[in-house]
Amino acid sequence: MNRERLQQQIQFIVEIDKLKSILRRTYLVNNSRRENTAEHSWHLTVMAVLLAEHANEQLDLLRVLKMLIVHDIVEIDADDTFCYDDIGALTKADRENRAADRIFNLLPTDQAIELRNLWTEFEQRDTSEAKFAAALDRLIPLLHNYHTEGRSWREHNITSSQVMQRNRYIGEGSDLLWEFAQNIITEAIERKYLSVG
Amino acid sequence: MNRERLQQQIQFIVEIDKLKSILRRTYLVNNSRRENTAEHSWHLTVMAVLLAEHANEQLDLLRVLKMLIVHDIVEIDADDTFCYDDIGALTKADRENRAADRIFNLLPTDQAIELRNLWTEFEQRDTSEAKFAAALDRLIPLLHNYHTEGRSWREHNITSSQVMQRNRYIGEGSDLLWEFAQNIITEAIERKYLSVG
Repeated sequence: MNRERLQQQIQFIVEIDKLKSILRRTYLVNNSRRENTAEHSWHLTVMAVLLAEHANEQLDLLRVLKMLIVHDIVEIDADDTFCYDDIGALTKADRENRAADRIFNLLPTDQAIELRNLWTEFEQRDTSEAKFAAALDRLIPLLHNYHTEGRSWREHNITSSQVMQRNRYIGEGSDLLWEFAQNIITEAIERKYLSVG
Repeated sequence: MNRERLQQQIQFIVEIDKLKSILRRTYLVNNSRRENTAEHSWHLTVMAVLLAEHANEQLDLLRVLKMLIVHDIVEIDADDTFCYDDIGALTKADRENRAADRIFNLLPTDQAIELRNLWTEFEQRDTSEAKFAAALDRLIPLLHNYHTEGRSWREHNITSSQVMQRNRYIGEGSDLLWEFAQNIITEAIERKYLSVG
């Protein structure tokens, strides 16, 4: 029984290696290449450990970490949808649901349900853990853009109002992080990394 | 006070982006390129969530995850030391201690201490959490090697006795995972991915 479970788990673990080949629009801080979704997910887990103390509400850190660990696995099939891509956004939920159906179901049923529920919780942003996890997921591209002189923003003609609109949800997870994010945005505008509009 | 802490934390979060540029000897399952340490760390966290049930002892999963999240951060300064590199092994502890001194101390003192203690715990392999985390860290390169027909083993002339010697610690974390690992090694020998010796 345990051996059968292990086989299914290993199959999933090998499958998700593909997340290392899914590229995001952001560039590494050293500007050498685009970031992939697997390393991005790791970065978020470190942030969660360090920044949980700034959350608006009490958090179950283990659940935040689990959510961040699985939150982008669907991109293996659905690819990364750029957060400012309005056309991609129309089909995102459908593509990602089909991806979740296939990928999580490689696992033993109880774990397939657990991981899918974590992913759904993250997407719905209703719990304090999901709000905080989503805040981190929005904050980190600001840092990447700031340290690469707005490279990804400039490549995609993103303007300050889009960035403000997209990132205002950070405040649902942490008022302090939202204050910090607004300061980055203001400074990015002053330095011409981000166009006003 | 919170704003000062946050500045230090953000400085650390930006600094550790460098872990995405530290290359390991293993290749991705699709054989396209060498794996980096940041994405490897993420992969281990997924494994921990799924495989904790096979650990020999009861685990605090949150501590396992925190340990895996930080266990390789020192490689930013110390670089990845190939696990079969006997000469590199002579200087590894010294290089990594200096790295830990610099990198963790970017953080507020309490968090610098927490992360360094997690790293030390992982390295010492004394607690049930550290034994299990270390078992996962040894298991995953076996899977990468197996799925790339032993590419990293062949490139470095690694033999079966070295692989057995290196990986026997998996059994300290999980008997079932060690049984599974031995099966992979046996099959890798049969398929000529790994030379006997």
